[in-house]
Amino acid sequence: MLTTHPFDDDKLKEECGVFGVWGAEQASSLVALGLHALQHRGQEAAGVVSFDGTNYHQYRAMGHVGGTFDKPKVIRKLAGPAGIGHVRYSTTGETALRNVQPLYADLAMGGFALAHNGNLSNAMTLRSELNRRGSIFQSTSDTEVIIHLVATSQKEKPVDRLTDALRHVEGAYSLVCLMPEGLVACRDPLGIRPLVMGKLGEATIFASESVAFDVIGATFIREVDPGEMIVVNDEGLRSFRPFEPARPRPCIFEHVYFSRPDSIIEGTSVYETRKAIGAELAREAPCNADFVVPIPDSGVPAAIGFSQAAHIPFELGIIRSHYVGRTFIQPTQDVRHLGVKLKHNANSALIAGKSVVLVDDSVVRGTTSLRLVQMMRDAGAREVHMRIASPPTRHSCFYGVDTPKRSKLIAAQMGIEGMRDYIKADSLAFITLDGLYRALGDERDSQAPQRCDACFSGDYPTHLTDFENEPPEQLSLVSNT
Amino acid sequence: MLTTHPFDDDKLKEECGVFGVWGAEQASSLVALGLHALQHRGQEAAGVVSFDGTNYHQYRAMGHVGGTFDKPKVIRKLAGPAGIGHVRYSTTGETALRNVQPLYADLAMGGFALAHNGNLSNAMTLRSELNRRGSIFQSTSDTEVIIHLVATSQKEKPVDRLTDALRHVEGAYSLVCLMPEGLVACRDPLGIRPLVMGKLGEATIFASESVAFDVIGATFIREVDPGEMIVVNDEGLRSFRPFEPARPRPCIFEHVYFSRPDSIIEGTSVYETRKAIGAELAREAPCNADFVVPIPDSGVPAAIGFSQAAHIPFELGIIRSHYVGRTFIQPTQDVRHLGVKLKHNANSALIAGKSVVLVDDSVVRGTTSLRLVQMMRDAGAREVHMRIASPPTRHSCFYGVDTPKRSKLIAAQMGIEGMRDYIKADSLAFITLDGLYRALGDERDSQAPQRCDACFSGDYPTHLTDFENEPPEQLSLVSNT
Amino acid sequence: MLTTHPFDDDKLKEECGVFGVWGAEQASSLVALGLHALQHRGQEAAGVVSFDGTNYHQYRAMGHVGGTFDKPKVIRKLAGPAGIGHVRYSTTGETALRNVQPLYADLAMGGFALAHNGNLSNAMTLRSELNRRGSIFQSTSDTEVIIHLVATSQKEKPVDRLTDALRHVEGAYSLVCLMPEGLVACRDPLGIRPLVMGKLGEATIFASESVAFDVIGATFIREVDPGEMIVVNDEGLRSFRPFEPARPRPCIFEHVYFSRPDSIIEGTSVYETRKAIGAELAREAPCNADFVVPIPDSGVPAAIGFSQAAHIPFELGIIRSHYVGRTFIQPTQDVRHLGVKLKHNANSALIAGKSVVLVDDSVVRGTTSLRLVQMMRDAGAREVHMRIASPPTRHSCFYGVDTPKRSKLIAAQMGIEGMRDYIKADSLAFITLDGLYRALGDERDSQAPQRCDACFSGDYPTHLTDFENEPPEQLSLVSNT
Amino acid sequence: MLTTHPFDDDKLKEECGVFGVWGAEQASSLVALGLHALQHRGQEAAGVVSFDGTNYHQYRAMGHVGGTFDKPKVIRKLAGPAGIGHVRYSTTGETALRNVQPLYADLAMGGFALAHNGNLSNAMTLRSELNRRGSIFQSTSDTEVIIHLVATSQKEKPVDRLTDALRHVEGAYSLVCLMPEGLVACRDPLGIRPLVMGKLGEATIFASESVAFDVIGATFIREVDPGEMIVVNDEGLRSFRPFEPARPRPCIFEHVYFSRPDSIIEGTSVYETRKAIGAELAREAPCNADFVVPIPDSGVPAAIGFSQAAHIPFELGIIRSHYVGRTFIQPTQDVRHLGVKLKHNANSALIAGKSVVLVDDSVVRGTTSLRLVQMMRDAGAREVHMRIASPPTRHSCFYGVDTPKRSKLIAAQMGIEGMRDYIKADSLAFITLDGLYRALGDERDSQAPQRCDACFSGDYPTHLTDFENEPPEQLSLVSNT
Repeated sequence: MLTTHPFDDDKLKEECGVFGVWGAEQASSLVALGLHALQHRGQEAAGVVSFDGTNYHQYRAMGHVGGTFDKPKVIRKLAGPAGIGHVRYSTTGETALRNVQPLYADLAMGGFALAHNGNLSNAMTLRSELNRRGSIFQSTSDTEVIIHLVATSQKEKPVDRLTDALRHVEGAYSLVCLMPEGLVACRDPLGIRPLVMGKLGEATIFASESVAFDVIGATFIREVDPGEMIVVNDEGLRSFRPFEPARPRPCIFEHVYFSRPDSIIEGTSVYETRKAIGAELAREAPCNADFVVPIPDSGVPAAIGFSQAAHIPFELGIIRSHYVGRTFIQPTQDVRHLGVKLKHNANSALIAGKSVVLVDDSVVRGTTSLRLVQMMRDAGAREVHMRIASPPTRHSCFYGVDTPKRSKLIAAQMGIEGMRDYIKADSLAFITLDGLYRALGDERDSQAPQRCDACFSGDYPTHLTDFENEPPEQLSLVSNT
Repeated sequence: MLTTHPFDDDKLKEECGVFGVWGAEQASSLVALGLHALQHRGQEAAGVVSFDGTNYHQYRAMGHVGGTFDKPKVIRKLAGPAGIGHVRYSTTGETALRNVQPLYADLAMGGFALAHNGNLSNAMTLRSELNRRGSIFQSTSDTEVIIHLVATSQKEKPVDRLTDALRHVEGAYSLVCLMPEGLVACRDPLGIRPLVMGKLGEATIFASESVAFDVIGATFIREVDPGEMIVVNDEGLRSFRPFEPARPRPCIFEHVYFSRPDSIIEGTSVYETRKAIGAELAREAPCNADFVVPIPDSGVPAAIGFSQAAHIPFELGIIRSHYVGRTFIQPTQDVRHLGVKLKHNANSALIAGKSVVLVDDSVVRGTTSLRLVQMMRDAGAREVHMRIASPPTRHSCFYGVDTPKRSKLIAAQMGIEGMRDYIKADSLAFITLDGLYRALGDERDSQAPQRCDACFSGDYPTHLTDFENEPPEQLSLVSNT
Repeated sequence: MLTTHPFDDDKLKEECGVFGVWGAEQASSLVALGLHALQHRGQEAAGVVSFDGTNYHQYRAMGHVGGTFDKPKVIRKLAGPAGIGHVRYSTTGETALRNVQPLYADLAMGGFALAHNGNLSNAMTLRSELNRRGSIFQSTSDTEVIIHLVATSQKEKPVDRLTDALRHVEGAYSLVCLMPEGLVACRDPLGIRPLVMGKLGEATIFASESVAFDVIGATFIREVDPGEMIVVNDEGLRSFRPFEPARPRPCIFEHVYFSRPDSIIEGTSVYETRKAIGAELAREAPCNADFVVPIPDSGVPAAIGFSQAAHIPFELGIIRSHYVGRTFIQPTQDVRHLGVKLKHNANSALIAGKSVVLVDDSVVRGTTSLRLVQMMRDAGAREVHMRIASPPTRHSCFYGVDTPKRSKLIAAQMGIEGMRDYIKADSLAFITLDGLYRALGDERDSQAPQRCDACFSGDYPTHLTDFENEPPEQLSLVSNT
Repeated sequence: MLTTHPFDDDKLKEECGVFGVWGAEQASSLVALGLHALQHRGQEAAGVVSFDGTNYHQYRAMGHVGGTFDKPKVIRKLAGPAGIGHVRYSTTGETALRNVQPLYADLAMGGFALAHNGNLSNAMTLRSELNRRGSIFQSTSDTEVIIHLVATSQKEKPVDRLTDALRHVEGAYSLVCLMPEGLVACRDPLGIRPLVMGKLGEATIFASESVAFDVIGATFIREVDPGEMIVVNDEGLRSFRPFEPARPRPCIFEHVYFSRPDSIIEGTSVYETRKAIGAELAREAPCNADFVVPIPDSGVPAAIGFSQAAHIPFELGIIRSHYVGRTFIQPTQDVRHLGVKLKHNANSALIAGKSVVLVDDSVVRGTTSLRLVQMMRDAGAREVHMRIASPPTRHSCFYGVDTPKRSKLIAAQMGIEGMRDYIKADSLAFITLDGLYRALGDERDSQAPQRCDACFSGDYPTHLTDFENEPPEQLSLVSNT
């Protein structure tokens, strides 16, 4: 796996990013660049489907966007003025390629390609039923359910078939599709996962994050609204609201960690939000220390905010091996005991004899925090305090984020003092859920929260049909914040 | 090419890093980890030679250390308690692999493996002479000259043959060798390139930088002295001074850019030095601005130093695509005009309407500075000031650093005001050469500078025999600082 | 493409071979060996599906069986006591892998894997209908129709669903399937393509040709009868006749060219049959010459038969490059004019000044015959006679053999004298269709031929539904023998 | 390994073929085709060096000529009107590529490329001496000795340096070289290995066998004489005799097995010679049987000769898997006991109840003969007689043929009756050495044999310096025919 995340094993992982273009000269070039800008949302596989007015062209590959979709021969094959693409975090295995999106099928109504960010919480139930009626599944992806629902719909028009299909599904979906009527973008009624619309010359563009527009020089137009379906073709753009209205619940974790700091979500800068979270954290849980040290790189904006609010100098106490693009896998057992510091190293000359406050965006298993505190102590730190720019992560996500089982979430297993003891810090504090909403400029409505904060609160905004009878180990419907 | 340097095209490149181990259980595991920690010194090829007491084993590959030297089957082949390794920045081409070090030869005296950081300034002259006497060269590397000099030396003992060989060469060399008498480390009389010695349990270790010791948990012992040769084998460690004594001239650019910030060079922390350079720069060339914005990542320590000295907030005004390990090559011409921002993006929400001071470590061609200033203006910056944490780079290096031709060095072509005009900044300043020495705690002796600062001053510390009759375009013996 | 056929471009190509095992220790090992023995029936792709009692395992690859299915790690993954395999001649292209058999689907009734030799003549018609009802096709193969018919069948039991499905299809099929009830083998009512049953210890085996049994030391039991379905599982073996009885019409070309000479078809040795054809040809079209020269290697048995019947010495007048496993593609235009003899060469020392009779199994385009006659003349032959061990090939096959368009079949374009003139032979003769039946020990019933000889006679034994309205260029329902 | 030899493990292997061209438009195209025609002389690696008048271009690869040297991009790189090439049988291993010829070196006199068929019997001795004087060897090949002798020669002119070098070596060499004076071909004084000269338009060509001329449509001119050196350049062709005259001793085994049947050696057709050997064998060791069965493919010509002389029908009793280009490696132990017949199969329908005489070209270890006799008996043969078209192979070759150790040569271990008993044949006979000479039209002069027949007689025509003090197990200087 290619990565420069220093502590990838101990982060929640966004499972997908999507991108779509209608009306460009060579759409696939833009799709490739857009996916590259969304690479942080899924680093294990990528795919593109283009449409040249007559034929669909597809290419999927394991690995990063670069290395595949920057090859001229790949891009040239993906001909045409329309295209959609997908980056994916996924489990590995020999059959993985068939799960790489966009999925594509030749339906009686014509070609149909689909890229999906999110996760359906009744996919297994629908799949069993479709299977019994003779539908043959090619993948193990929840997304394929949508394609079979479209294929077997009794409606006439392609867009009506898609609407009909989506009315059967439950959960989170931000979709871009290519179909006979054009490029279709759609966001589930709660708008759990993001989707934005932009413009580059004549071309209309959709992407998971606005940063993908910056990269190609496109202009941000607006978010796709929760519950909105937009159809773009050479006649223009039409917007529908085919679903029952609902109060939106966009994912709060996009602000905390998933989105790039240079993206704009719901009208606010992610960088500014993270600094505000750091500042709020400094107010909620002040700390007297010589330096604020960010956990690179995701903790940097919150650490700057903390440093400025607390008037404590910001210093690079942990050096990442920035220069290294390719993960180094420890080759043999005989060096394991050395506690090898492949991705990060203490800046010992700075740390020795000092009191430091480490700022990180979130804690999942706690193993990374444990190692970092130890690394600071080995470097001679006098005191090590830890501040976390999100509330304790206590619940699994069923909407497209890869979370460990609850039994692996340290915050689901113990209280804050227990965690502090486990990671051996001198002090530990998390921002509160209310504090997090405050940093976002809101006051949390605990009866009807304005966002999906289920990973912190356990308050899931949809049914979870697939898990109702036999709740999996990672499920919890009881809030225990 | 794998890289996460955002502006690689516009940096000087260290050409090599070396690492050697004697007395470990599986030396090649340590060599691989050490090379990984030195990856920033050479990202295009890597090689390891091990010695198991009877046989030598070798493996070389293009590309990063990870991806090759983290494969158990590669490491297992590299058997034995002794090993040396090399990372290399090199020109590409089909014959490149034969130039990848360590070089190895079966000599009549036994096996001889050699890893070299530096560059010889009389290699071409020696090569012609050896060729005329019947020596057949396998590579186009200057380093191979040393091997043929050892092979044809009239001395008896292997170490004497090596000493005899090195007395003929001129230029910069920090070497680690495996030969019948053991592991040999040697640094040229001026100590131009770095070389340090450490210890891990019973094993003796040499590396280009101390950070390689941190990564494997080894202890730093001391620098190998300029002009010193150290022989390590199972009998112990012997130190020699086989060359005429000379006043050392270690490379000053290691402090500015090459070395990792968590390395210790000549007893000082690189991170602290870079902060001190930033602070000196703030004093020499103060600037009134809303934010200090570092050019990521190499400009960060100097920017922190500048920010603290100038009491201007430090902010991430340029976001790197941290999450991307593999370079994305723009696939087709049709998107070139978009000004694609693949590796970095302005944090527009922060920058708009503000005055910023950008801090970078050095300027080579100036093309990057031009793009960054423009990016800041496109993001709405009111004023853009540029401060550089090294003096103008006006001369080529002949000692193992890849520098462009002088005609490509912007500072060799124009004065500071000309550069400011070219990059379209509101103001531009470089630290002075004396200021740089001050930040290092020294006062520069202009008659006999304490360091090699030829890239800034043109004051080369050795003869440049290969270039004497026919000076190449990049050569300049006249100082014009 | 890997091949040792000297004149591959100018031969009809069998499109498939199938192999299946139930009850062996590691079935996939036997499947791999069996497919290797059937490699001549399809050289462009191969696949294996195994069943371990719980899970199905699959592996498909372009290229030969060797190189993929002789790798221990591939075979180990294909675990279990049951397995089926397929070799395929197919058109190339990026999506080819999804067409490589066995096809596999997870149906509501359980896993279903299918390997098919033959071709359905109403596949396109059925596919359109299934597509309209919501079935999504993964491949462009006619075989997938069977799987969707099984998936959507209203029957309860898996075997009944398969029978139900096969009642809708028309054309040629020799199948081996893995499904919940066990290993199923089935041959279409006319038995157009071959299928034989054998035994190895406890294991039951099915294969396209008996030679696959020889290779693994298995015992030939009997042919699967036309219209027979056999189900093998741990309870034993059951045979059904689920279709309406019909007079069998097995393919006559298997005797002429497709099958290996060491196979036994319909109780007779292919080698002996080919010798008998050669002898009959010598009687029908005698020739006075110094030598009989076989076109290697497929013409050898008929040439021996001709030589013995005509009392003319058998000599190797054409030398094949036996030693070469990998086809050499002429790299550049500049050598094309040399008339390069890559795969075969005249034995000039033998041929010069002599009269020769060349014996080949069949003529498709005539281009090879033309080159061979010319090669003999260039080598100094006094006279060159050509004798062909099959009747003129005038019609396309729709039952699983790759035939060129009719316009490319030389015998569909001109009479025998025209062909003789085209290939520039001194004389040319084909065995008659009646003579071919005589060599097989039969007298042809022209009202109801005992075999499918449509490629010679145009007398197709089934409907050709897909071609009824819009007959493709290669179709001819009018006999013009 | 790619091969279609059915019993490769049990054959002597020619170690090399060479090919050279001067004066063609794109010489490397012709070299590639010529090497393809010589593929049977070395199937494990191939290389080409071309010269465009200024630069040399080289490419080497493991594997067959096809697959590498039929790629346009490879051929295009090998620019120029002159080129030499080499095919090699060699031991495998990670360092094998550096042993692949042509070897190339940049000498002070200019570029020097060398392709060598044969083996030097004093290479180890010379190598030690050169090594002591400071020459560094790149390969483990005996051929490299020649290059270092050229590099260190005291002569002025390149051709004189080559002559000087060759005067120091002993053994067998047929060479083609590219050097400043042009294309040089040279054959050792005894002419042990073959080398022929041809013409294609203006181009002069050298090859190991005349069949390489047939393939490209070139004309055979004459053999290069033993002890002759020919220099070809744009001024024309000069011939020298730089060595002491000696009575030639060309290898007799070229006629028996190595050369292709369509080659002409020493003025005679290999095919005719092999038929004559078969006929002589029928006279020396007659046999009453129903059929003559050739061991495919190398035994076919001798079997035809035997059949015609003995008036016993020639039949294909053993069927090779002709259709298979890629060797299939038995993947797992669990099928080993089956006695899998991957490459050949008995034609049981023919053999059952019959008496057969098998004709093979040679016997090395005897393991193949044992298996074939058993295969015939398993197929129901009544009697199995074996006739061998060469004398017993009792001695190792030191001149470029890969022979097993003497202890593995069955004929070095036991007499003919012992061998018959070992292979379980009803009778066994070899042609006598005198009979073999008779078939070649000679009477053997036992005092001074006209050919090198050391593998049969032990009478080695040169010194074997490397083996004099410490004779290796495979050496025998005592004739024991």
